[in-house]
Amino acid sequence: MADVPARTEIGVTTGPIRGSRKIHVGPLGVAMRQIQLDPGCGEPPLNVYDTSGPYTDSAAAIDIMAGLPARRTAWIEARGDVERYDARALRPEDNGQLGPDRSGGVQPFPNVNKRPLRAKAGANVSQMHYARRGIITPEMEYVATRENLGRAMLAEYVRDGEDFGAAIPDYVTPEFVRDEVARGRAIIPSNINHSESEPMAIGRNFLVKINANIGNSAVASNVASEVDKLVWSIRWGADTVMDLSTGRNIHDTREWIIRNSPVPIGTVPIYQALEKVGGIAEELTWEIFRDTLIEQAEQGVDYFTIHAGVRLPYIPMTAKRVTGIVSRGGSIMAKWCLSHHKESFLYERFDEITEIMKAYDIAYSLGDGLRPGSIADANDEAQFAELYTLGELTKRAWAQDVQVMIEGPGHVPMHKIKQNMEKQLEACGEAPFYTLGPLTTDIAPGYDHITSGIGAAMIGWYGTAMLCYVTPKEHLGLPDRDDVKVGVVTYKLAAHAADLAKGHPAAKLRDDALSRARFEFRWRDQFNLSLDPDTAESYHDQTLPAEGAKTAHFCSMCGPKFCSMKITQEVRDFAAKQNAPVASFVAAEDAEAGMAAMSERFKETGGEVYLPAEN
Amino acid sequence: MADVPARTEIGVTTGPIRGSRKIHVGPLGVAMRQIQLDPGCGEPPLNVYDTSGPYTDSAAAIDIMAGLPARRTAWIEARGDVERYDARALRPEDNGQLGPDRSGGVQPFPNVNKRPLRAKAGANVSQMHYARRGIITPEMEYVATRENLGRAMLAEYVRDGEDFGAAIPDYVTPEFVRDEVARGRAIIPSNINHSESEPMAIGRNFLVKINANIGNSAVASNVASEVDKLVWSIRWGADTVMDLSTGRNIHDTREWIIRNSPVPIGTVPIYQALEKVGGIAEELTWEIFRDTLIEQAEQGVDYFTIHAGVRLPYIPMTAKRVTGIVSRGGSIMAKWCLSHHKESFLYERFDEITEIMKAYDIAYSLGDGLRPGSIADANDEAQFAELYTLGELTKRAWAQDVQVMIEGPGHVPMHKIKQNMEKQLEACGEAPFYTLGPLTTDIAPGYDHITSGIGAAMIGWYGTAMLCYVTPKEHLGLPDRDDVKVGVVTYKLAAHAADLAKGHPAAKLRDDALSRARFEFRWRDQFNLSLDPDTAESYHDQTLPAEGAKTAHFCSMCGPKFCSMKITQEVRDFAAKQNAPVASFVAAEDAEAGMAAMSERFKETGGEVYLPAEN
Repeated sequence: MADVPARTEIGVTTGPIRGSRKIHVGPLGVAMRQIQLDPGCGEPPLNVYDTSGPYTDSAAAIDIMAGLPARRTAWIEARGDVERYDARALRPEDNGQLGPDRSGGVQPFPNVNKRPLRAKAGANVSQMHYARRGIITPEMEYVATRENLGRAMLAEYVRDGEDFGAAIPDYVTPEFVRDEVARGRAIIPSNINHSESEPMAIGRNFLVKINANIGNSAVASNVASEVDKLVWSIRWGADTVMDLSTGRNIHDTREWIIRNSPVPIGTVPIYQALEKVGGIAEELTWEIFRDTLIEQAEQGVDYFTIHAGVRLPYIPMTAKRVTGIVSRGGSIMAKWCLSHHKESFLYERFDEITEIMKAYDIAYSLGDGLRPGSIADANDEAQFAELYTLGELTKRAWAQDVQVMIEGPGHVPMHKIKQNMEKQLEACGEAPFYTLGPLTTDIAPGYDHITSGIGAAMIGWYGTAMLCYVTPKEHLGLPDRDDVKVGVVTYKLAAHAADLAKGHPAAKLRDDALSRARFEFRWRDQFNLSLDPDTAESYHDQTLPAEGAKTAHFCSMCGPKFCSMKITQEVRDFAAKQNAPVASFVAAEDAEAGMAAMSERFKETGGEVYLPAEN
Repeated sequence: MADVPARTEIGVTTGPIRGSRKIHVGPLGVAMRQIQLDPGCGEPPLNVYDTSGPYTDSAAAIDIMAGLPARRTAWIEARGDVERYDARALRPEDNGQLGPDRSGGVQPFPNVNKRPLRAKAGANVSQMHYARRGIITPEMEYVATRENLGRAMLAEYVRDGEDFGAAIPDYVTPEFVRDEVARGRAIIPSNINHSESEPMAIGRNFLVKINANIGNSAVASNVASEVDKLVWSIRWGADTVMDLSTGRNIHDTREWIIRNSPVPIGTVPIYQALEKVGGIAEELTWEIFRDTLIEQAEQGVDYFTIHAGVRLPYIPMTAKRVTGIVSRGGSIMAKWCLSHHKESFLYERFDEITEIMKAYDIAYSLGDGLRPGSIADANDEAQFAELYTLGELTKRAWAQDVQVMIEGPGHVPMHKIKQNMEKQLEACGEAPFYTLGPLTTDIAPGYDHITSGIGAAMIGWYGTAMLCYVTPKEHLGLPDRDDVKVGVVTYKLAAHAADLAKGHPAAKLRDDALSRARFEFRWRDQFNLSLDPDTAESYHDQTLPAEGAKTAHFCSMCGPKFCSMKITQEVRDFAAKQNAPVASFVAAEDAEAGMAAMSERFKETGGEVYLPAEN
């Protein structure tokens, strides 16, 4: 791990991931990570999906104070449907400076753009709108190249997976991306004021994505550590990052994050709105909320979690639950609805919110404010009542060509996970599903990245497009840097397990490359091909630290004397020496005996085809 | 965590798990752990399954030099079918002392029993044999009480789960245990020379169990650390422990482990046999192997992994694999078969092995020597050829009333996991399945407890009876104490997730108790009800270390000002104040609107029953 301090007071981790280098593919220079392999192994380097942005590019100069290059601006302005205007003026309450105890202390981002972009009057700048008019944007082209990875290598690939009705193509064309976005089956979150972002798609027919949550709270954290966590989380593979800050300096923290983020940034605007009214939910108003949306839209937030499905009639459905309402946004709205005895303003003003979304191309992440917070509450009345409302809202957003994804639970035992996916597909017209885990048991605080990683892998297989990570600190405290990494890597492996099981054409390349490296004792290749080369190598070194052990043809499990991998090589050598196909090297008498045994088994198993070929 | 040194040179962790005390239930004094809850919460303490033996009993005196009390001896001798005899004499090669570089250095266990038990001539002392003759042994009674836990509390329990054809009873009677053992659907590993063990069952209709592997290797580890790992692994929930030692002092290490183990101990006898021939597989003979079985039988090993399904004709099927043969036992036998160009002596002498098993009541764990070692090799010809042979051997073992379980993979992508369970049930007549993971991707060395925890939870749900843990060091090095704990806790949560999904009657009690504690901000109860109270509390304290935060009605995520849990309480209070059922507290006009919306959704979804009750 390279811990090169960036040229700023805010330190972030830069430099290539070990064993890899950044490459840029095609006319758009799509960033990928290329893993170098031992020159003697006879295998080409492996390109993998790369979310880390310029931070892992040895050729890039990183300046946190200036932010990343705004390369999408040219694409956006070329479309001729945007205008610059004077930004909304910053107010003290945007940073929670309501009194002497809540004063700032955080340096503002030095390079704030006071002239943001928005759609010209009457225009709609959403990727969905372009897609539905048949326009292939550079964002869509970028996504196509990015998703293809090594698929060109796969001429002889035989699809192996169960995708539960998804429509994953052998090869991703820009037209395929356009069509998926037009249908609402995928989104490309891309606020026109976040032109630092590298376009990515969230949808069931693309690679499964993961989100990392960061953000300060009223009791802990600060800007420097949040920017560090952003860069750290994308280094290990976070596809999007949500800034869930709830404490002071929310506005400035977000500015630092967005300006330095190559991945889409999501927020829950009601969190900031609540800070603006001193934390008193019943004092929230549509005007304050709307103003917060504009504030965040101008900064460049790519998707908003909006809990518009928490409707007044559903709130009492939660009263008999074991854990009631556990979503923060959901409970804020529940409190508001109860206090005013009125339907939620998010629901009532939904079309007005959509007007704002389309002027900046912000995607909806329709929040599941009534998600279950315990195994006991999974798949209950309140949860599904809200889900069907989210489906209704999806159609309303789509009517204005605004991109939508749907948030999902939560805590769900394994046997109830599939129903969540099925109902979501049915209720929400195949809009991408974006789930938090789900956690498959409540009894392992401290290990909830794992209880939820199980559920995440499963629901990702069933069709969820993005998995929101859970860290080991879930339910207990705020994640630190180490927790963020563990959460991200856990979710990367869950997402990859899902891609494999869906039969994604490119997914297995990396598993096979790593397994060949393992089999051939190419230790460095094994480390470098893994999701976390640093941890893999350090674990190896704890038992066999000597440099020679990196090239040794044995490991610490069996030692040098006997090794099962070596034996297999002997099996192959033996077969090769026989100068005959491997399947026939057993001498005739043994082969006969083997055949007789096979024949017997064939009869025993009722005459089913013996040893069926995998489909 | 109480780190009270035991009264011996070998230090182990003793003392109760925090918040719990040991209880003994029923006439047999079945050990359970009782988790105490806040006296003010109005809930009874929760009894949980306890594998930790006397080490967590404040009332027990622990003496590693003397070993645990041999309480089963009276039960065994009362059956009148055993005899004592002079043990096989210890030989230098039993401890790998083949030359000056392999000399001992480990203190022998001071209290070795030189007069072990075996069945009288013509007798069969297996639990299966008793079961098939209609005899309910104390071991079966112990298991029944142990498995029931809190089921007596569950009078109003509505079964909620999908068990894929298992036959989990509402209440476990001794007769049910007997019947399951008689059918071969469950085993109670219980070597008559390991009378220190607390009886436990492995079977699809019982709680899902987990195994922890320990053992030294040629390059690392020592006896003290192995005994420490034994006690440490059962503290956190390992139901059985396998001693996979492959280095020096195998015999003495095993003696220390068995004498101090309240859980069944499994081994792979071919490992020790290989050490006796200096690591040269082709020099193995039936006589050396048989002698090793007797040696280990007399010490009290409860189950033997025997790779008798690695038949000569199957070996070439592995030559085209990405990772060939990855099982150590499998590759030893493959090497032997190739070298001699002969069928495996384990297969040819299987019935003779079974004769030994029944004289001591050792259970078979039929090894999957040809399991896949990579995603690419999953569910292939070699794997299933061996599986059907294991089915054939199961029937041969059952013909002598010897208990059997079947080992399973390995590396398997999610969409191929279920087929493993289905084929195993079909091929092996419902003998318990015992799988290693499976790992659902190859690309995360350093996190393979998680890649495999995903597969383990799923296959446990589908019907696997015991899950062999994988630690973070898998593929990289030997697990240390911390790795053992992480592996055990990960597998406990996977097994529990499986129990929940199967609808096991008692499983959900703990989730619900923990979730209620979480909802009510009973922090200490939340920690104590978790699988790892120490880690849960330490994670909490990293953000909010003050003692007051343990009773605070908020957490570090939202802080004191706003809290979603508090809001839910307000929803309830509001509903209660209305003096009406919670479902009807919404004012009439809102209720009407809600009903209209529901009605509309009902139509939209094609008239399916709205909000179906969970089955």
